[in-house]
Amino acid sequence: MKKITTRTQIKVPFYDLDPMNIVWHGNYVKYIEEARCDFFEKLNYNYTSMYNDGVMYPIAKMDLKFIKSAKFGDNLVVECILKELEPAIVIKYNIYSGGEKILSASTMQMAVDAKTGATLYQAPEKLVKAIEEYDE
Amino acid sequence: MKKITTRTQIKVPFYDLDPMNIVWHGNYVKYIEEARCDFFEKLNYNYTSMYNDGVMYPIAKMDLKFIKSAKFGDNLVVECILKELEPAIVIKYNIYSGGEKILSASTMQMAVDAKTGATLYQAPEKLVKAIEEYDE
Amino acid sequence: MKKITTRTQIKVPFYDLDPMNIVWHGNYVKYIEEARCDFFEKLNYNYTSMYNDGVMYPIAKMDLKFIKSAKFGDNLVVECILKELEPAIVIKYNIYSGGEKILSASTMQMAVDAKTGATLYQAPEKLVKAIEEYDE
Amino acid sequence: MKKITTRTQIKVPFYDLDPMNIVWHGNYVKYIEEARCDFFEKLNYNYTSMYNDGVMYPIAKMDLKFIKSAKFGDNLVVECILKELEPAIVIKYNIYSGGEKILSASTMQMAVDAKTGATLYQAPEKLVKAIEEYDE
Repeated sequence: MKKITTRTQIKVPFYDLDPMNIVWHGNYVKYIEEARCDFFEKLNYNYTSMYNDGVMYPIAKMDLKFIKSAKFGDNLVVECILKELEPAIVIKYNIYSGGEKILSASTMQMAVDAKTGATLYQAPEKLVKAIEEYDE
Repeated sequence: MKKITTRTQIKVPFYDLDPMNIVWHGNYVKYIEEARCDFFEKLNYNYTSMYNDGVMYPIAKMDLKFIKSAKFGDNLVVECILKELEPAIVIKYNIYSGGEKILSASTMQMAVDAKTGATLYQAPEKLVKAIEEYDE
Repeated sequence: MKKITTRTQIKVPFYDLDPMNIVWHGNYVKYIEEARCDFFEKLNYNYTSMYNDGVMYPIAKMDLKFIKSAKFGDNLVVECILKELEPAIVIKYNIYSGGEKILSASTMQMAVDAKTGATLYQAPEKLVKAIEEYDE
Repeated sequence: MKKITTRTQIKVPFYDLDPMNIVWHGNYVKYIEEARCDFFEKLNYNYTSMYNDGVMYPIAKMDLKFIKSAKFGDNLVVECILKELEPAIVIKYNIYSGGEKILSASTMQMAVDAKTGATLYQAPEKLVKAIEEYDE
């Protein structure tokens, strides 16, 4: 499978901070979703395309490792690396602040038929094609 | 119009706190929504009923006055008072902590036909009936 | 008082959507906060400067009018207009999507001494100077 | 180590729903935090006690497995099971809806000296005592 890595910039907003004046740990789930949406956008296969094709990609598994904490105004870079496509989409994430890795994470998504709810163990053709055509 | 007042208890969770160790101001919008859902639930006319009836009630206007701040673990009481029903639903809110008022707010919601998107200036019959039948 | 208007771009993320596939109304509070932080940043008087100067600016009042709804991926422009500085900071907001206004809002913030909690009815000197020196 | 299991009830609020009309996956992080806070509360060793003792318990690792989705108004039961205490606190979570398991998760927290930032590999005495004295 073709190796695809994308990078997304996120600036830490005030409303994501907790009483320790750092990003509340649960908010990193938003950052990796933003990066994942951007990943699919860059593949020309975004949320709207999926929706129109009747395929959904719910998260089945997610893990996060917190290394350092992010602060207000930090310019984070979220790296998405496509690791597996079938039978499930596995993406690995690294978040960097000032060049230093502060978090690593991964998600596993299943392709699901939006009408029947059935799990699709083969990646939808459009997604496979989008990956093949992706030019970094 | 019949006067209806309901009360909903909310315990402040950790994830709603900001760097000042108090509830971030935007989170009160969640508290008043929770209280409003509870209000309609107590009227036996909840979100699911509305949805099944094909009527939506988007918020058209909202204002909040912040008097005091809430802290982790505070047991808040959110009071909902129905003020107007037509042409729009106006609800007033008071949030109390330890008997002291810490916030007042109000929302205006329009009834909208879910299919056509048309504004309904008369309150749906079911809602009027639910209010009439409500017993405090 | 000098008229200052700033503009901030926000792209609607997936996690801000509600069951109607539009931005949940409470999330606009985040968008106007982001724009306000950007406003103060552009003034060279950001959250960190305020914090170091021992002055806080809690929101005392906020109102929002919802005109149209924003959707996934919309590129919003949030306009901040400084309306009043003393005795309280009043900012007006307009959110545009594709050139069309979808929301208007305003906030009132009091300057508060972080140590004593006392309200400051005169704008801090640094803020006044930052406004004077601001060049659009 | 003594086995401790607590249960916390959470009712799914409207604002946690996503366009599929189910709870957005990232919101389960809030539910397990609420259950964990309740766990420590029931141990008589809550967030405020920790804070006063100068010990923090940041999340170092978290993983979630999504089995089924929760809907508006669902009455969830979040089960917390203390698995390890040293060198890190490991808690396992199960979320049930209508008796059916819909999510399993786990968190690893390090005890950290709030002043020095140093990791404490031995559980603080107060926490050990709180666990010993806990009566189910």
